Amino acid sequence: MKFTIEQDVFSKALSEVGKAVSSRTLLPILSGIKMIVEEEGITLIGSNSDIIIERFIPSKINGKVVAEVLQTGTIVVSARYFTELIKKLPGQIHVETINNQTIKIQSGEIKTQFNGFNAEEYPILPLIDDSINIHIPAEELKEAIKHTVFATARSETRPVLTGVNLTIGDNKLVAVATDSQRLAFKERRVATKDKGSFVIPSSSINELLKLINNDTGLVEIQSAEGYILFKTEEISLYSRLIAGNYPNTASLIPSEPKTTLLLSREPLVKGIDRACLFAGEWKNNNVSLSIEGQKLCISSGSSEMGTIQEFQDIRHMEGEEELKISVDGHFLLDALKTINEAEIKMKFSGSMKPVVIESAGEESSYLHLISPVRAF
Amino acid sequence: MKFTIEQDVFSKALSEVGKAVSSRTLLPILSGIKMIVEEEGITLIGSNSDIIIERFIPSKINGKVVAEVLQTGTIVVSARYFTELIKKLPGQIHVETINNQTIKIQSGEIKTQFNGFNAEEYPILPLIDDSINIHIPAEELKEAIKHTVFATARSETRPVLTGVNLTIGDNKLVAVATDSQRLAFKERRVATKDKGSFVIPSSSINELLKLINNDTGLVEIQSAEGYILFKTEEISLYSRLIAGNYPNTASLIPSEPKTTLLLSREPLVKGIDRACLFAGEWKNNNVSLSIEGQKLCISSGSSEMGTIQEFQDIRHMEGEEELKISVDGHFLLDALKTINEAEIKMKFSGSMKPVVIESAGEESSYLHLISPVRAF
Repeated sequence: MKFTIEQDVFSKALSEVGKAVSSRTLLPILSGIKMIVEEEGITLIGSNSDIIIERFIPSKINGKVVAEVLQTGTIVVSARYFTELIKKLPGQIHVETINNQTIKIQSGEIKTQFNGFNAEEYPILPLIDDSINIHIPAEELKEAIKHTVFATARSETRPVLTGVNLTIGDNKLVAVATDSQRLAFKERRVATKDKGSFVIPSSSINELLKLINNDTGLVEIQSAEGYILFKTEEISLYSRLIAGNYPNTASLIPSEPKTTLLLSREPLVKGIDRACLFAGEWKNNNVSLSIEGQKLCISSGSSEMGTIQEFQDIRHMEGEEELKISVDGHFLLDALKTINEAEIKMKFSGSMKPVVIESAGEESSYLHLISPVRAF
Repeated sequence: MKFTIEQDVFSKALSEVGKAVSSRTLLPILSGIKMIVEEEGITLIGSNSDIIIERFIPSKINGKVVAEVLQTGTIVVSARYFTELIKKLPGQIHVETINNQTIKIQSGEIKTQFNGFNAEEYPILPLIDDSINIHIPAEELKEAIKHTVFATARSETRPVLTGVNLTIGDNKLVAVATDSQRLAFKERRVATKDKGSFVIPSSSINELLKLINNDTGLVEIQSAEGYILFKTEEISLYSRLIAGNYPNTASLIPSEPKTTLLLSREPLVKGIDRACLFAGEWKNNNVSLSIEGQKLCISSGSSEMGTIQEFQDIRHMEGEEELKISVDGHFLLDALKTINEAEIKMKFSGSMKPVVIESAGEESSYLHLISPVRAF
């Protein structure tokens, strides 16, 4: 194996793949990055027990030569130190293996020799199956998972709730997450006849969010023996799936609201944020909402700190004017912060029924459900 | 007590004073900020066992009214929550005490009530004495302590070494720090007949660095019963002093170097940084320097990771060309990074004698001393 490569391209790719690698692993070889050098370019692979990231560096990017392969081969190098070293080297880098466990790196008058691992010991990639194969714009995928991932359960009591449930079918991709106290739902149209349901660990979802951006273009989603694969032109992310049946959440949503409010999102976020300050964690971050004199009253308090009360305009109201409910203010904030729209709809069905947050428009592509807390 | 104040001015001042306040304190009142409201403006005080920060908000800043005092008074409020609240309020803020332990804050349609502490229980400020009173430009003070504070000892074995020794006398201010393996020294001219020597905890020095900047103007330094006071127009920082005699460090500096090298600082920093990567902490970050063929050779290695070797140009050399020494690479980096100059002088007196780093110019206002480590 022998190649030259531009430092900036190599360094960026290594650090992207390195995100999957944990330095604390029982198998030393998994603390490494696998490099596969072929005529067409260089493939880097990093993995842990939850995800595998594969990144391809083509020899040419936009017609410009960034890597020149002189001899093919594979090796595994320490993710942490190799990535740090490449980051600190200037200009063009020459890489060459001495044997299948030692690698020589040279840049100008800097010469280093690095211990690696035999690539044959590195685990092989999961095999892709044909059960599902859809394409979705990166932007839409990102939006769907960003709108939901925060609502996954932290506790491992029901492992299936620690993931985001992605359902594909009926020309839709639906993302749902719930920790049984709140629920977040988001759907997007996709043109497909495939059907499938996957529960993806929130940690993988967060890595995926870091790897794709609005310039990424289309993301291809495929399934592969216990894994789901998100694939873009340059990067493939395999995520382990969580086994088990995801609960049917549709039945939880109250159908007939007693009161529907149309509210400006930004002042509401700021008001809830202030109220949270007075609602200590020792009381479930208890924030009260009520209607008083055609206004929304947000209040909170604790005997230790003091009290806060503020009034906000209601842009439109339907149904009963009688309203008094207490919710976890942080749950409200989490939901409101994922929304981009200036106005939102809040639906109330009584002080012991969940609050629903939806788009102000006719058809909402998202929905947030938040259970009330007892305030007395 | 009753006043109105601009939110941004109040919020900034509170967070500056809050830096001195620890939420983990045995005396609950010390988790608070003391507010003293007088005709001329509002004084805020925050403190912990090491430092006291006092900040004055005048009624007018640059001719613009920022605070209007309607009734004088004092109270102590929770630093953490009060500061957070003020940060989250919009526009102009009205503050009023209900009694000497409760405070009302209002901003538009937002009303809050806050529990405080009786200000009489708050400790009084140390009394200023006349033993020392000098003025120094903020920029110069900042430079003197930035050049030295990193070399203070982490271990509490000799408490006096955990601080920076500031000596005033002979129209000079001298800052020295040492952890007994390395030493940093920086001097500045000041016009004064006063004399004094103070050992200031590194934590206080770091707070001071955050509070003053190059726009601060002059800093007044005064002493006050076990404390040293750094005072600018708006802020006073009292730091506890460390008791004990600071060692005489002048004798440690080797007088007759065998080899003197003139080197470019930036490439040297980068080279040492790369070498540190291969010099694990388990070996004192052992980096070797030697002269080979009129060039400086920087090398390092470990059996676990591999080896690195690079050559750098020497801009000028005096004395013996025979040189081989090993030092803690991180100590070298710490020293080199505080220097702003493009060129530096390194003096060597043998492989078991400390390395000296000085300015390339005739008279150096700084000096770094780094003990060698055994490389075999």
